[in-house]
Amino acid sequence: MNAQEILRTHIKKTVDLTDEQFDYFFSFFKPKFFKKGQVVISEGEQVDHEYFVLDGCLKTFYINDNLKMHILQFATGTWWASDYNALYNNEKASVNVDCVSDAHTLCLYSEDREKVCREIHEIERFLRWRSNRGYVGLQKRILSLLNNNARSRYEELIAQHPELYNLVPKQLIAAYLGVSRETLSRLYHF
Amino acid sequence: MNAQEILRTHIKKTVDLTDEQFDYFFSFFKPKFFKKGQVVISEGEQVDHEYFVLDGCLKTFYINDNLKMHILQFATGTWWASDYNALYNNEKASVNVDCVSDAHTLCLYSEDREKVCREIHEIERFLRWRSNRGYVGLQKRILSLLNNNARSRYEELIAQHPELYNLVPKQLIAAYLGVSRETLSRLYHF
Repeated sequence: MNAQEILRTHIKKTVDLTDEQFDYFFSFFKPKFFKKGQVVISEGEQVDHEYFVLDGCLKTFYINDNLKMHILQFATGTWWASDYNALYNNEKASVNVDCVSDAHTLCLYSEDREKVCREIHEIERFLRWRSNRGYVGLQKRILSLLNNNARSRYEELIAQHPELYNLVPKQLIAAYLGVSRETLSRLYHF
Repeated sequence: MNAQEILRTHIKKTVDLTDEQFDYFFSFFKPKFFKKGQVVISEGEQVDHEYFVLDGCLKTFYINDNLKMHILQFATGTWWASDYNALYNNEKASVNVDCVSDAHTLCLYSEDREKVCREIHEIERFLRWRSNRGYVGLQKRILSLLNNNARSRYEELIAQHPELYNLVPKQLIAAYLGVSRETLSRLYHF
């Protein structure tokens, strides 16, 4: 599938757009290719855009005062990535986004997103449901962090996102799960 | 403020509705009063509604196989509570909601929410932004769980929601933070 078809299929799971509506929405997305390791968003910068991932994998992460990395999100195909706190609250980035692998993305600016939401009610609905699903996904992760041990958290992650197993180095998986690389190795003899 | 004014003020932070639009939306909310300790949603039941809290405090929680309670959310005035996974994915409740104190709420059914969203574009926008803010709030909590110790997590919670300090027993605060009641006591000599 090309970029247009990937986005259209993704949106179609939530709302039906006419060809004209979709083409109009699509005209605001700018294709952007990133190399493995390339920085997408850096802590401290202004954030006025988000990325729809076509292929590859981005990660959103935070580096604490002891230089320890915590991973907030992996974004593979049809996931969205940005610093959403910065984007929605008009604040500077407090997290970073970079590329775990080469990645093709489509970039959407906030200003354009809000413009199209005002103009096309269905797009507003699509984005409401995208946010609703994201909210529920994060609630599940919080319960998992509170309740599950490292083994269950790992198995849950790989069951939900099997593509991460080959795509993402194990120390990054550990940084997502909130356990040490050693703990993960002990459990799985990686 | 009466129920109508509380809801209207809450919505006005995001969108402007005409009196007619607001009255129409408000007509779908059913006032519901709960006594302290009363069950609002039980694990396993069908969930087709959510609550807008006018005053008092609800909690959303999960009891694990060892009968340990984890708290997903406290909902005080102008917060919303439900089992959102069940509500949005049409699944049976996997968490419980009950009352930390007496609480006045307004109940909204999913069917009515979706009907009004279709009819009034501004309501769809309001609910998109409610969800966007909820999403960002949960991302912050995940980073806090991954990165902060019990003391920072407690101070962060009380800074964001000072009303919880007097409203919520300390063992429930501990169940929200993911620490034992003893750890919290040692830190603060409660």
